[in-house]
Amino acid sequence: MRILLDVMGGDLPPDELIKGGVAAGHALDIDILFSGASDVISSALSRMHERIGSRFSILPSSQTITMTEPPVQAVRKKKDSSLVNGLVALKGGDADAFVSPGNTGAVVAGAVFIIGRIAGIPRPGIAATIPTVEGREIIVIDVGANVDCAPDHLLYFALMGATYARDVLGIDHPQIGLLNIGTEQAKGNKLAHRVYDLLSDAPLPFAGNVEGHHLLTERPVDVVVCDGFIGNVFLKTLEGGISAVSSILSKGVHGNLRGQVGGLILRPVFAELRRKLAYNRSGGAPLLGVDGSIVIAHGRSDALAIESAISAAYRAAKARLNEKIARGISGWSENGI
Amino acid sequence: MRILLDVMGGDLPPDELIKGGVAAGHALDIDILFSGASDVISSALSRMHERIGSRFSILPSSQTITMTEPPVQAVRKKKDSSLVNGLVALKGGDADAFVSPGNTGAVVAGAVFIIGRIAGIPRPGIAATIPTVEGREIIVIDVGANVDCAPDHLLYFALMGATYARDVLGIDHPQIGLLNIGTEQAKGNKLAHRVYDLLSDAPLPFAGNVEGHHLLTERPVDVVVCDGFIGNVFLKTLEGGISAVSSILSKGVHGNLRGQVGGLILRPVFAELRRKLAYNRSGGAPLLGVDGSIVIAHGRSDALAIESAISAAYRAAKARLNEKIARGISGWSENGI
Repeated sequence: MRILLDVMGGDLPPDELIKGGVAAGHALDIDILFSGASDVISSALSRMHERIGSRFSILPSSQTITMTEPPVQAVRKKKDSSLVNGLVALKGGDADAFVSPGNTGAVVAGAVFIIGRIAGIPRPGIAATIPTVEGREIIVIDVGANVDCAPDHLLYFALMGATYARDVLGIDHPQIGLLNIGTEQAKGNKLAHRVYDLLSDAPLPFAGNVEGHHLLTERPVDVVVCDGFIGNVFLKTLEGGISAVSSILSKGVHGNLRGQVGGLILRPVFAELRRKLAYNRSGGAPLLGVDGSIVIAHGRSDALAIESAISAAYRAAKARLNEKIARGISGWSENGI
Repeated sequence: MRILLDVMGGDLPPDELIKGGVAAGHALDIDILFSGASDVISSALSRMHERIGSRFSILPSSQTITMTEPPVQAVRKKKDSSLVNGLVALKGGDADAFVSPGNTGAVVAGAVFIIGRIAGIPRPGIAATIPTVEGREIIVIDVGANVDCAPDHLLYFALMGATYARDVLGIDHPQIGLLNIGTEQAKGNKLAHRVYDLLSDAPLPFAGNVEGHHLLTERPVDVVVCDGFIGNVFLKTLEGGISAVSSILSKGVHGNLRGQVGGLILRPVFAELRRKLAYNRSGGAPLLGVDGSIVIAHGRSDALAIESAISAAYRAAKARLNEKIARGISGWSENGI
């Protein structure tokens, strides 16, 4: 298997991302095709004592799409960017999956323009995986591909999220919940009401509404569906709550001797906390619904996060996730949904 | 001053809420009018060795609106509920403010029907106060009064939130931010784009977009405006993130001897954490934009939370917040907004 890695558009320098790609290549025994400025990549590889060959190769580009560029224009204008070149190469079959920590909107727009959607899917959705207190995972889809959703978009997010949960994460009979502001059926805005009805009527294991305050502790469902604006706010707010606690704790255990001693004694507890709730390190989020395996990594991804995102892409490609989503959709069409 | 307390509709039994009311009455040297079943209130007061008189009096009712009832129907049908009676008494001038931990939708619907809106305000908004890492506060409005907002609703939330910040919380020159999924102007959904433009053109100190992951640690603004669906998801997710960390920590410091020793040594740090980020204990959220002082307490409010909500109501009433909001609106109208 060969995975394409966009090393230019992240917040951290290409060297850091290349390090993650090299680590993933060795760990998973796969080939990595680095998309970006070829001098930067080749000198980074040589510093890491890696040869350019079949294991590690370069897809050269002269442009970079930055985080703040308007996505659609950026993709249209920067035809020789690491992002656009990567997607064109994926489409052409030069790789099995594409990983980018770059401008999320540009990855989504580029994927739709260049790769195209799976037949029958109205909109792709980004599926983030969040860890729970018990060390299990919940999928949240969409976390930012579509910021103005129609009700049926969320119905397809549910199907795609459930397929991902079952076929990639190995969750049997995944239960689906709708992110809402109360558990009762009548709660929520117009969109939530319509989606609730659609999900209730669909041949999907819909478990009703779920709320943000009990997701991580009670894990009421396996897959949470929501509009991409809400999902993005949800994800960032979760990160904000956790980092607020961490910040207060960190000050406490560095403030004075007593705190330092306590911090030392509780080191395993804090390590477990970091391991369990390290949102900015976890996985990378697959863009589901486009006709190619694409994983969006966090903009602030370091080498470890990139390695983890490549591993997510590897698992999705290996499980032939897109074929399974396409099969699910065609099953629906035959049954008149 | 006399404050009305609805003791029937919360998650906890009336006795617990009455305890909070009694504590607030003594602490603030104000009168409390308890709205609810008179036998329940009088026996609770007698158990607390309090006499019924001017300090503590009863507004009797025979019905209770529960948490799960559809708000509008509940308010229309249950004319002799503690909630409806309380609002009618507030409207009649029997009290200076009304505090309820009951069905939020019913409080909002009842307030609009019975008390009415301040002239010029299209929709009321619930203003929650969230503590930051540095021990300061941020106001988030709306957190659930309106789940389908038009752009101009958020403009008025901004005006009301800023007035509350300045005149009740004593924040000089409060800065306003729009809850969004990126800080750049172009980020967000259609609603966010329109609100961004409205806020930029308004005579308000608008500081741009803010995101959930840095609010508590960086505190970029004093007032955050958002649609009530988003605001409610935001608030509950913050609570969820914090409670997930607390749950892991709690297991860690109770799991084995080492954890217990560490927990004992770090007790002051954990106490500070609880004090700073005790979301379910903090304040109570004023419903701004209706022509009376109304504070919505958390459904799970205990005595301490009720005392704190009464204190918030007391401060809002004392600062004549509604008159100041009305004056702000009429200033706008004169200036052609």
